Amino acid sequence: MEALSLSSAKLAFNPSHFRPNYFRFLSLSSPSIFPKFKSPPSISPNRSAISVIKCCSTFSAKPSSELRKLRQARANHDEKLRALRELFSKPGVGIDAYIIPSQDAHQSEFIAECYMRRAYISGFTGSAGTAVVTKDKAALWTDGRYFLQAEKQLSSDWILMRAGNMGVPTMSEWLNDVLTPGSRVGIDPFLFSFDAAEELRDDISKKNHELVLLSKANLVDEIWKDSRPQPPRKPVRLHELKYAGVDVSSKLSWLRSQLANDGCSAMVITKLDEIAWLLNLRGSDIPHSPVMYAYLVVETDQSKLFIDDSKITSEVMGYLQNAGVELRPYDSILNAVENLALEGAHLLIDTATVNAAIANTFKSASNNKKEYKSRSYGSSNGGSNGATAVYRSSPISLAKALKNHAEIEGMRNSHLRDAAAVVQFWSWLEAEISKGLTLTEVEVSDKLLEFRSKQDGFVDTSFDTISGSGPNGAIIHYKPEPDSCSIVDPEKLFLLDSGAQYIDGTTDITRTVHFGEPTSREIECFTRVLQGHITLDQAVFPENTPGFVLDSFARSSLWKIGLDYRHGTGHGVGAALNVHEGPQSISFRFGNLTPLQKGMIVSNEPGYYEDHAFGIRIENLLFVKEMDTPNRFGGLAYLGFEKLTFVPIQSKLIDLSLLSAVEVDWLNDYHDQVWQKVSPLLDGLERQWLWENTRPLVKQ
Amino acid sequence: MEALSLSSAKLAFNPSHFRPNYFRFLSLSSPSIFPKFKSPPSISPNRSAISVIKCCSTFSAKPSSELRKLRQARANHDEKLRALRELFSKPGVGIDAYIIPSQDAHQSEFIAECYMRRAYISGFTGSAGTAVVTKDKAALWTDGRYFLQAEKQLSSDWILMRAGNMGVPTMSEWLNDVLTPGSRVGIDPFLFSFDAAEELRDDISKKNHELVLLSKANLVDEIWKDSRPQPPRKPVRLHELKYAGVDVSSKLSWLRSQLANDGCSAMVITKLDEIAWLLNLRGSDIPHSPVMYAYLVVETDQSKLFIDDSKITSEVMGYLQNAGVELRPYDSILNAVENLALEGAHLLIDTATVNAAIANTFKSASNNKKEYKSRSYGSSNGGSNGATAVYRSSPISLAKALKNHAEIEGMRNSHLRDAAAVVQFWSWLEAEISKGLTLTEVEVSDKLLEFRSKQDGFVDTSFDTISGSGPNGAIIHYKPEPDSCSIVDPEKLFLLDSGAQYIDGTTDITRTVHFGEPTSREIECFTRVLQGHITLDQAVFPENTPGFVLDSFARSSLWKIGLDYRHGTGHGVGAALNVHEGPQSISFRFGNLTPLQKGMIVSNEPGYYEDHAFGIRIENLLFVKEMDTPNRFGGLAYLGFEKLTFVPIQSKLIDLSLLSAVEVDWLNDYHDQVWQKVSPLLDGLERQWLWENTRPLVKQ
Repeated sequence: MEALSLSSAKLAFNPSHFRPNYFRFLSLSSPSIFPKFKSPPSISPNRSAISVIKCCSTFSAKPSSELRKLRQARANHDEKLRALRELFSKPGVGIDAYIIPSQDAHQSEFIAECYMRRAYISGFTGSAGTAVVTKDKAALWTDGRYFLQAEKQLSSDWILMRAGNMGVPTMSEWLNDVLTPGSRVGIDPFLFSFDAAEELRDDISKKNHELVLLSKANLVDEIWKDSRPQPPRKPVRLHELKYAGVDVSSKLSWLRSQLANDGCSAMVITKLDEIAWLLNLRGSDIPHSPVMYAYLVVETDQSKLFIDDSKITSEVMGYLQNAGVELRPYDSILNAVENLALEGAHLLIDTATVNAAIANTFKSASNNKKEYKSRSYGSSNGGSNGATAVYRSSPISLAKALKNHAEIEGMRNSHLRDAAAVVQFWSWLEAEISKGLTLTEVEVSDKLLEFRSKQDGFVDTSFDTISGSGPNGAIIHYKPEPDSCSIVDPEKLFLLDSGAQYIDGTTDITRTVHFGEPTSREIECFTRVLQGHITLDQAVFPENTPGFVLDSFARSSLWKIGLDYRHGTGHGVGAALNVHEGPQSISFRFGNLTPLQKGMIVSNEPGYYEDHAFGIRIENLLFVKEMDTPNRFGGLAYLGFEKLTFVPIQSKLIDLSLLSAVEVDWLNDYHDQVWQKVSPLLDGLERQWLWENTRPLVKQ
Repeated sequence: MEALSLSSAKLAFNPSHFRPNYFRFLSLSSPSIFPKFKSPPSISPNRSAISVIKCCSTFSAKPSSELRKLRQARANHDEKLRALRELFSKPGVGIDAYIIPSQDAHQSEFIAECYMRRAYISGFTGSAGTAVVTKDKAALWTDGRYFLQAEKQLSSDWILMRAGNMGVPTMSEWLNDVLTPGSRVGIDPFLFSFDAAEELRDDISKKNHELVLLSKANLVDEIWKDSRPQPPRKPVRLHELKYAGVDVSSKLSWLRSQLANDGCSAMVITKLDEIAWLLNLRGSDIPHSPVMYAYLVVETDQSKLFIDDSKITSEVMGYLQNAGVELRPYDSILNAVENLALEGAHLLIDTATVNAAIANTFKSASNNKKEYKSRSYGSSNGGSNGATAVYRSSPISLAKALKNHAEIEGMRNSHLRDAAAVVQFWSWLEAEISKGLTLTEVEVSDKLLEFRSKQDGFVDTSFDTISGSGPNGAIIHYKPEPDSCSIVDPEKLFLLDSGAQYIDGTTDITRTVHFGEPTSREIECFTRVLQGHITLDQAVFPENTPGFVLDSFARSSLWKIGLDYRHGTGHGVGAALNVHEGPQSISFRFGNLTPLQKGMIVSNEPGYYEDHAFGIRIENLLFVKEMDTPNRFGGLAYLGFEKLTFVPIQSKLIDLSLLSAVEVDWLNDYHDQVWQKVSPLLDGLERQWLWENTRPLVKQ
């Protein structure tokens, strides 16, 4: 087994070059700041999937109750650790520690089961965590969301590192503490972005440890063997032009002109949603995200898609040939990158997302060619014939965020069907509860899935439903489990945050309701959250405004009485793609300078959470549009939002005396639109429910 | 003449160490973002000063009409340039270019006449500008505020560099373009902060130019000779404890504990307001700022004030002896710094403010001692016996910004007297105009000074009054000149931004009024500016919130109709000190991460400016206080503002239909407070005017 060592590798970085790193929000040291970055990966078999046949027979969605069953038994940990440590001394390995992160090779938010190596080796199934195994110790870092779960799931062989708690070392600090100076720390370089690997290398070099990149095989896979689930092989489907808006040829031409501008001859793309967006393809390899495992290399005159060809139907095959995209085996990506170096490519690499295996293979092959030149971050130099790595943010990230007319139409349409399903659900739930029936948090979220799955073009949930009654609503990343969840208590607030993937769009909505008599405290808090929601919804702002400038609009009303919430106010959303995407956000964290731009989609989701009591969140999706303001000071466009989500907001939770006349008008206008747009999709009692829940309120 | 060369000098900087640089807002490349950073320096003789005898006979204030007369004739420029260039080849000089900035040696906003070297050499008297003279060229950089003035004032020997215009090079770019590579560029290192000199050195090193620090004498002074005004020698006075709140011993003890925490044995202080604050002294060396030219060195067991001793009365002498502060000649600062190095001091240097002459003298003397160690920015190492420069922000900056009870009381009291004077003025002006009298912008601002100067404890104006009728109000940095200003047109909006120094406080207020029938456009814009003012005034926010988070509150209402303003919303204000101080600000520029903290004073001054038509600004001063919120989410204090300024806002400019009920209540409550607080200081027609202008409005 060949070991790539990073210890002698140093590429020039310019630390002053600011680079918003959206998904850093997911890192252990700073737990997710959006309520929806939440789902622990599901480790469940494929049985009991609800088949959805309306749009295409290959789609399936698993009910939450299934998705959440823990298959992993607490057994054989000693054996696994022993087997893993045995590999440390194998020829070509020779390491003193091995790090097993949560990631797949594409920095995906949700991952396929076969890549859940950290869960396999440690037994801990939460979505965030990193395992480190040394010759005599094993430690697992996770954040506050998962302390209880990790305590239950980890065997006594493991040390639980409660990240963020006082005195708990970071992974690097711990490695520097427990290893003899000059040790060798192994990683699978596919599972670390180049940036993350470089940071790790720097951190452990303080004790002269060497970072060893073991790219030939993942050591956990070697012991997992036959019990390891097969990699997903779901067929890839075309994302129709009527939903995509721009054909693949135009997107590839655009990307090539971007590469030419940057002095690049090629780009390697590893983010699965970027590949899906660029090629107008969709997949089913991962729960919640309609993407397929693949890499894509775009060169000046050709493109190569690295994918398991069993996923490629003859229709897709013809489509790709037509677009000039050749197929290559998924596992041959490193060879291809090596060839690019040997051919002298100027390769654009987004080091925040491209994994260290790919980035270092290119670098290493370029060095072997003796023509490699270290490049400053973001600089390019077209004058050399030598292979050159050009480190830049992916241009696809922003382009994907700026939705075109067809994408916005798809989002509008899918949101109306989704609204119909959600209204059916609330109408049903209110009726059941009024009958005195007892339902659990998981049962109701399964029922919501059932309503959604009947809608045209339904594909999947877009994330694990957050269904929290009373105090569970105050746990921002709450994930009810069938065997431990609460009932939906009619005397408490109930928070439901859910979303779906449709063939034409992606939804994400939160409503908070009460089935009985809310307290005055609950009403005041709900009303102030609503005021924040309205203020952000109604904001108008000049172009070039970063999202964080608007974040305080959503908090102002809560701040007046000394309340706040500990998550961001808005995240980007893909069009029939990932429910979380960058580069924009609306957050109190002011590191993200990406301006909000026409066509971007963001969530608007202020909240308030009272520990051990209740949680409130009101979430709509919005898209950014140009406003027809009577002035354009500074020659700038002024931007604002248009709503995509049309589901009633519960009136009984609103204290009208707190609302201004403008706010009451907003609410009445919104409910009028909800009725106009969604009632045609409903009939009977559900239509009646919608009528009753969209009546205008009158402030005395 | 000894020349210190910076080309071989390199101190370790950590660029990732963020350091808000408040006064960078004044740099040429980014013209002032606050309306009040505006006053071109006055170059007028001392005659015609209005003597103010109420508090102390040494104070005097010059009327604007005097302050603004330009004494500088457009003559002899050739002769000056020839004489200056002759000095280039003197032994110990040997330079190819000389840079003459606007600054004094203390980075003061306003400076004494004898330091206006750039105005002397170039003839251009605007407040911002940098002159560069090479052997055969002379160029002057200034910003858009001063293009017209510079065109008029510069002789044909000068190239006017319109900074910010397309294609105009920066000073360094120009030097790199016109000088033969490897040239020597001279500066007076007293007139550049260490940071600015380092930046300049870096910039010109691209063409191998060497930065030559000519610290022995300023070349312009050498040719200015006898016609150069004498350095100011106004007596220094005590700032009484009842106004300062904390005695000098306590402040020095606090500073020494700060130094000890940073591993420092001494600090050199060059900012004049920091010296005045620390020693509870005030001076009259500079218009608008009650400070005296001095340096201060605080060591563990002694302090030395470097000042012209003719300014020190026997009372102050005794006071300083009592406080353990020794006197040294102003010009002996470099010797003292050299001695500190030789004694092995660990010297705290704020490189953003301390001039390059002082910082480099310490460095050079430390190097000669062969024990000097280059230090990382912000780091300190107490283990060495060698002289060490510790580069840190001055701890005084923040301490000075956090006003104590006595300082806030002084601000409150002086604001009420100031409000009485301002009300007298508006009452007078309205009466004069209703009589059909014609008054110029300068005449009315002189009258305002007359009213203010009658108030107890009046010392000076706190900046040059901005008095702009109609289109002049749209020039954010407008400065009316007696010979060219407009009349106050009764049919146009009139913007008046002014302030005063009192013995117990500093004021800064803007009101915009109309004496006739405002247009609906003017009313809509004024109302939206007022809404922004109210929203910021009423903001509540958790501690640790930087000012920029609140900036959008003040713009939101304007944004809704596509309007905005191109300056910040709030700046810090000193207590009987500089009208502009850091470290806090409220601005759309999000570089300043300083949180707003209890006791800070900020201005609240949104505006709107319609080119060639009118300007609107509404400005009050506020202080930050802890709010008694019913909750304290996150265990944090929630902060808000309390008003210091109590002067009516003109009702006829308000469209009540645009205001919410809460906004109308704010206005009525404010006017009620104005009446309650200010009416006791008035009688007769002025009291009647106040009554009429504070009546509650009723929204239909």
